[in-house]
This record gives sequence, structure tokens and C-alpha cells, in this order.
Amino acid sequence: MTERPDWIAVDWGTSNVRAWAMTAEGAVRAEATSDKGMGKLSPPDYEPALLDMIGGWLDRGPTRVVACGMVGARQGWVEAPYARVPGHPLPAGLTLAPTTTPGLSFGIIPGLAQSDPADVMRGEETKVAGFLALNPGWDGTLLLPGTHPKWISVSAGEIVAFRTSLTGEVFAALSGHTVLRHSVTSDDWDQAAFLSGVAEGLARPEALMNRLFALRAESLLSGLQPPAAKARLSGLLIGTDLAGARGWWLGARVALMGAGELMDTWRAALQAQGVAPEEADATQATLAGLTEAWRRSQ
Amino acid sequence: MTERPDWIAVDWGTSNVRAWAMTAEGAVRAEATSDKGMGKLSPPDYEPALLDMIGGWLDRGPTRVVACGMVGARQGWVEAPYARVPGHPLPAGLTLAPTTTPGLSFGIIPGLAQSDPADVMRGEETKVAGFLALNPGWDGTLLLPGTHPKWISVSAGEIVAFRTSLTGEVFAALSGHTVLRHSVTSDDWDQAAFLSGVAEGLARPEALMNRLFALRAESLLSGLQPPAAKARLSGLLIGTDLAGARGWWLGARVALMGAGELMDTWRAALQAQGVAPEEADATQATLAGLTEAWRRSQ
Repeated sequence: MTERPDWIAVDWGTSNVRAWAMTAEGAVRAEATSDKGMGKLSPPDYEPALLDMIGGWLDRGPTRVVACGMVGARQGWVEAPYARVPGHPLPAGLTLAPTTTPGLSFGIIPGLAQSDPADVMRGEETKVAGFLALNPGWDGTLLLPGTHPKWISVSAGEIVAFRTSLTGEVFAALSGHTVLRHSVTSDDWDQAAFLSGVAEGLARPEALMNRLFALRAESLLSGLQPPAAKARLSGLLIGTDLAGARGWWLGARVALMGAGELMDTWRAALQAQGVAPEEADATQATLAGLTEAWRRSQ
Repeated sequence: MTERPDWIAVDWGTSNVRAWAMTAEGAVRAEATSDKGMGKLSPPDYEPALLDMIGGWLDRGPTRVVACGMVGARQGWVEAPYARVPGHPLPAGLTLAPTTTPGLSFGIIPGLAQSDPADVMRGEETKVAGFLALNPGWDGTLLLPGTHPKWISVSAGEIVAFRTSLTGEVFAALSGHTVLRHSVTSDDWDQAAFLSGVAEGLARPEALMNRLFALRAESLLSGLQPPAAKARLSGLLIGTDLAGARGWWLGARVALMGAGELMDTWRAALQAQGVAPEEADATQATLAGLTEAWRRSQ
């Protein structure tokens, strides 16, 4: 890279960080990553961690960084207070972190909060803003798979409401820290067992506590194999999530935004209910959202 | 103790062991406990662990031990194959473990299995047998709180069906190994929050995945305190269990069998639904059941 960037985009999550050297037109000139996520840092650690990534992109002139994600959490670099829904995904100004490098400013996009039911997001609002920048006028439900899947209702360029579930983290906790670990530990996956779990969780969410134990019982009694038990566990939890979120997908326009295997998992679960979700790339949306936030804060 | 016991009763669980020196009439002469539960032992370890507890009760004559619990699991001393429900809680003979001490015999009560829905128990069948010996002719639903709560339908002296849930272990896994740990860690307990969680879990089990995340969101947004978050988490899970087990308690005669705080928790959850459960002491029932098994195997 021969020229300094016009600005720098940063997605600073709990586990990892990504930074992009950007042009004013929103093109990427260079990219850097780090594993110094929010979960590993105290406030004084952030600026050195940032400079490790982007120091080579700076010169004596002023450089603005626009960041989203857990860097703005209460336990992050500096708290970027939540904005409220319903509203635009990027409604407010940026919160500046305290930097000491001459010319460097670091602005954090606020997360969004919902009062009833209580819910929060940090980082996803930027993806939604980017998705809307790439798909002007889009109305419907965005589903962001992950440790904490988020259902986000979008209309007329605003976030109307959202719904976060603990589904992915429940799967990890039950797989790793209950008696089910003896039954579900496998690198393989049985798709038919997954889909039967989804159907069961959706049809009978009230049976969940018993169906979880039944995974163990079936592995003892009828030789349920780990790839099937693991996939059925995932299916039961995702099916329960689908049951609670029925109003978010039934008869709705749905777009899945994410990356990797989780996209396949949720796509299959939705398709089994007759939903044909559109799909969007999470990194593209993040970059478009950070660009949108940079423009709005000029 | 001056006389040798007529027989010895043993409840050998995953974590702990209890042994009682018994008379032929079912009276307790002496008691011993150990922390050498099934989870810590390989097959050759069992006889030394047993002798550490009961060696002082033996003399040169023959001594019979009757045992229940996880000692008969596949990973236990020797597998005591499951009997099937519906049927008597103590339907079959005992499985003898391989002992080397002259005169010592160690017989294990079989666990019970149910095919559809798949379910298993080991140890609880002995408590049910003891409860029925103490309460002849009792018909209704026995609820055994615990890590894996068991709903057991009893009629005409037999176990008709049973239903195990993972509820207690789900609570421990979510409390200790998800983001909720930041919100629920407390030694205190908010009973009103517990009951509101029970009501919510029972009324809307399909909302569980979202209500779990909402515990975290409320602690961030509205200062939900740990004693309330912990109790509500427990309530949501128990309420979900109650929703799935509705047919087991609604309009039914219910007896709670257990010990300690979990009895208070489940009693309150049931009473809030208008159920006034009878109560039974788990140790008394275990001893009565072991005595019944000893008599039936004479």
C-alpha cells in the first residue's frame, strides 16, 4: 500500500478484530486481523492492540477510525451507550475512545437496545445498516445465525424490533457440560436427524427438557449414534427457537446473513418450513455499514 | 454394634455411596457413607471401596448385600440389565457382582427402561418400590426432583410410564458455562422472580431460547439483580418442564419425593399451579425399597 487510507474501518468483537484500510469511495485497500478481542483486553490495552494492526497505515496526517462491536460495551474500550429501537440502525453519533496517538481518532457506533422484551445488540446494527445500503427499500426479517441468533424486523429503512436467542450457546453448554457430552461428541453430522429434531422442537417446544434427556436414553438403549445425537440436539434447540420466532418468519420475507456452516444449518431448518431465505454475506454488510457510518459522521 | 447384621443395604450413586447394616425386620443398626461414587471407580475398585465401608460389619458367616443405583450401570461394577416398564418396580432378580471376600455376595437391583419415549432409571425404581411398600395401594404421579427430575406414573402397584427431564443439569450448564454466568451468580434467591419464571415457562415454553437471552439483556439494561436472574432462570426451566409434563400433574394425585432445597423449589412451583403435593422422604423410601428387594430375593 503506497497511499494512506482515507479512513479505517474496524469490527471489534469479543474474540477477534478485523480492520480495513478504506478509500473515501468505500473500497478496501488493505486488511488486518488480530485475536485481541474485547474478551482479552482492559481499556489501556486497546490502543496498542489497534496500532499493532493499523500502525503501518498511518502517517503524520489525521486518520479517522470508525468501529463497531463489543469494543463499545461496558467492559470494552469505552462504553458507547445504546440507542433505542424502533429507529434507524445508525441513529446517533459516534462515541470517541480516548487515544494518545497524534491525529488518530477512534469513533464507536452505538449498540441498540429494546425495552420490552429486553434485548440488546452490538455490531449487528452495523450489518443491518450495510445490508440496507446494499439493498435499498428492503423490508422483511433478517436472521443472523450465531452463538446468539438475532431475528431483526426491518421496515422502511428502520429496525422495528428484534429478538435474540441463546440457542447457539445453549447447544455448546449442553454438548460440553452435561451428561449429553457422552452421547453427542462427534465431528460428523446426520442431516436427517437434524431435520427431525427441528420438526420436533417446532411442533412440541414444551417437550424440550424431556427430549434432551431422551437423547441420552436413546444412546444407552437403542444405540443412537453421536453424529445423529449431536445433530438432533442442534435441531431440537433450533426448532424451539423457530417455534418462539414463528411470527418473524411465517409468511415473511426472510434474509439470512452470516457465513460458514451455520448458514447451511439455518437455511435447511427454514427451508423445511417452506421458507426460501435470501442470503447476504456478513463481511460485505459489515463493511457497507461501517462505510455508511463514516459517511454519516463526516 | 455387637451383632453382625442380617443383611446390608447399599445405595451406590454416581457421586456418593451409603450403606446400612440391617436386621431381618428392616431396622437399621449402623450406617456408613463414602464419596467413592460410580463416577470415580473402575470395576476392580468396587470391592475395596465396599470393604472400607462395611468391613467392620462382617464376620466369618455369609453376608448378603442388596444394592441399587449406578453401581449397576454399564460403567459401574457390573451391568445389571434394565427391566422394562410397564411393570413392578422390582420385577427381576438381582445381578451378582464378582466378589472375592469369602461369604460376601453383592446383588444389584436392575434399572428400568422405557422404549417410547426412550427413558431410563437406576435407583429410582427402588425408591418407588419403597414408597409403595410404605403406602400400599397408592396411585398417582411421583415426582423425584434432582439433576434429572423424574415423573413416574404409578398404578396398581406398578410403574405405568415415566418421564425424565434434563432440567437440573440444564440449569447448572447455563448458569456456569454461558454468558448468563455474569448475570445469575449469587447465593441468594428471589422467590417472586422464581414464580414469575415458572409462570412464563409454563405459559410460553416456545419462548425459552429468547427468554434466556433476555435475562442477560435485562441485567444490562434494567439492572436485573443476580438473585432474581438466577431464580427466574430456574423458574423458566422448571416451568418449561411443567408445560411438557402437564398430563402428569394436572388433576392428578402427586407426591414429591426427595430432600433439601429442591423439594421447596418444586413444591412452590406445583402449588402455584394449584397442586398440593404429598411428600415423602427419599432415604426412607430407598431403605424400604432395598428391604423389599432383599425380601423378594430370599
